[in-house]
Amino acid sequence: MDVKEIWTNFIHDLQNKICSALEEVDGKATFFEDAWERPEGGGGKTRVIANGNVFEKGGVNTSIVFGDVTDAMRTQLKIEGDTWWACGLSLVLHPINPFVPTVHCNYRMFELCDSSPSGGGREGAVIDRWFGGGTDLTPYYLFEEDAKHFHQTYKNACDAFDVSFYPKFKKECDNYFVNWHRNAERRGIGGIFYDYQRVAPSSSPEGGKANAQPIPVKDADALYWIEFAKKCGYGFIDAYIPIVEKRKHTTYTVENKHWQEIRRGRYVEFNLVHDRGTLFGLKTNGRIESILMSLPPVVRFEYNYQPAFGSEEYKLQEACLNPRDWLNEISDAEREEWAKRSNTC
Amino acid sequence: MDVKEIWTNFIHDLQNKICSALEEVDGKATFFEDAWERPEGGGGKTRVIANGNVFEKGGVNTSIVFGDVTDAMRTQLKIEGDTWWACGLSLVLHPINPFVPTVHCNYRMFELCDSSPSGGGREGAVIDRWFGGGTDLTPYYLFEEDAKHFHQTYKNACDAFDVSFYPKFKKECDNYFVNWHRNAERRGIGGIFYDYQRVAPSSSPEGGKANAQPIPVKDADALYWIEFAKKCGYGFIDAYIPIVEKRKHTTYTVENKHWQEIRRGRYVEFNLVHDRGTLFGLKTNGRIESILMSLPPVVRFEYNYQPAFGSEEYKLQEACLNPRDWLNEISDAEREEWAKRSNTC
Repeated sequence: MDVKEIWTNFIHDLQNKICSALEEVDGKATFFEDAWERPEGGGGKTRVIANGNVFEKGGVNTSIVFGDVTDAMRTQLKIEGDTWWACGLSLVLHPINPFVPTVHCNYRMFELCDSSPSGGGREGAVIDRWFGGGTDLTPYYLFEEDAKHFHQTYKNACDAFDVSFYPKFKKECDNYFVNWHRNAERRGIGGIFYDYQRVAPSSSPEGGKANAQPIPVKDADALYWIEFAKKCGYGFIDAYIPIVEKRKHTTYTVENKHWQEIRRGRYVEFNLVHDRGTLFGLKTNGRIESILMSLPPVVRFEYNYQPAFGSEEYKLQEACLNPRDWLNEISDAEREEWAKRSNTC
Repeated sequence: MDVKEIWTNFIHDLQNKICSALEEVDGKATFFEDAWERPEGGGGKTRVIANGNVFEKGGVNTSIVFGDVTDAMRTQLKIEGDTWWACGLSLVLHPINPFVPTVHCNYRMFELCDSSPSGGGREGAVIDRWFGGGTDLTPYYLFEEDAKHFHQTYKNACDAFDVSFYPKFKKECDNYFVNWHRNAERRGIGGIFYDYQRVAPSSSPEGGKANAQPIPVKDADALYWIEFAKKCGYGFIDAYIPIVEKRKHTTYTVENKHWQEIRRGRYVEFNLVHDRGTLFGLKTNGRIESILMSLPPVVRFEYNYQPAFGSEEYKLQEACLNPRDWLNEISDAEREEWAKRSNTC
């Protein structure tokens, strides 16, 4: 069994399924694929959508990259070993309609080996391997039922593995996508986010701890986290598409669009100032266009823009400043309604 | 004689004069002043212009800030002493018309003292003091005569002090405003940029060297750099306003505006990813709205946008990728023409 192959197949299948679902809900635009190779090793498939009925700009990218562990990586990333390998999917969608939320998701696997691959394709022993990922929603207007549906979908995915996951990963998400320079305003209303997952919770008392002492690398642990990524990754379709269906025909005004463009400015601020993945890519000769594909199509920066107290715009901003526990209030009726909707999409 | 007072008076006078000149050339919008105080010490006057005939968004800010040297400053900025004081002017102007260039300028003084101010207003001994500044131009379309005029104005200012300054500070500018992640594409066509200027060139063999061994702090050195900042600071009006006058009535198309918005994206990328001042402000509890005032009003990010080979847009991009020595080709006739124009504005 080859863990990398299982992961890679999943990532490419996820890319295909998500692109199909997005094209279907858009009804007009289709993805254009830009395949690229990286001189240092590996490459990717950048798939871009633009000027659709629903999506103004978006991308669903996969990449497989690898290389030698450099001194800079050893120092800055505190990485050991001789070679590294990484593969993941990353998507960002910026809809036209301000009532349809922007969404981001990312699932990735990282592996380190202690000796360089030999000429015959044989690779060195795996000395470390971890998984990360998550999905977060960035609405411009707050519909509580959408927020609850989105979070409930990921809670269900998490609960199928470990009931401790959703509260933990929800909190990690709330604490990651933060514009710290704006009084800790969140980019959106969160979702789940996890990183450095090495072992299955049942596999070791150290389970899931980042930076724990060296742990023997077991394929069984990898399979656990691959299954989890599958549940969450395919879950994206259930989490996001029904919200798009529900909001895509909502009438909007110039003022709604203006607010969307202002909020997109916050998205740019987070991605360029704080996002580890973006900054790592920009500073390590990553493929710029694939990295910056996440930036919104049209953005507005105004001096000291403040929404009117109590307005719908203000309510969204408040939800970003004060992350909420969306699922404490959910009713069974709401849950059933959303399940029905998800199944018919 | 109080160096800080001389500097502060200059900075406020410069703010007034530049704002007046900009309002005059705009002909419609006036500056709105937002005065603010900083809880840790000091404050500023943020002056904002928007929706004018010429300027879509802009600001001319001054601030005086001070405080105790923190452990973080000692480690990260390699600063010594007990208290610090800084005062400067910073401006960015984003015109509506894509044929009018965006411009940025900044002049600042920094001082460190070795003991905290006592209750009676007396301050500790000055242990270090330095000056920095510069002005750079970001056109969307390249007019060589504008580039030459802009650079010639600053060369003249520099030459009045030291003929080594212009080539040195021009190069520093070309090497500072760089989107390293885009194959070292410059933000614009440069200007001058200098930092850590402590001593007058005639004053010491160590003149102008950053991080040299401790140098006795002399007011004469400060006065030299204040005079230089005055020459460059007031020179902004001669350097920029004639270009605005010349281009502000140029007819433009939707395509020209689209290109301007794409290029503004590069401006955002530089300011949020690379600019030391912006990042320092964002990470040290600076006044966010004053710092991010530099961001353009409406910005466009498109996947892998490339101007057509040989087009006017392409020529501008080439000038950003390959900084040019604008003044090697300047003719006397051009110089006279610009001098005449500057004097009549």
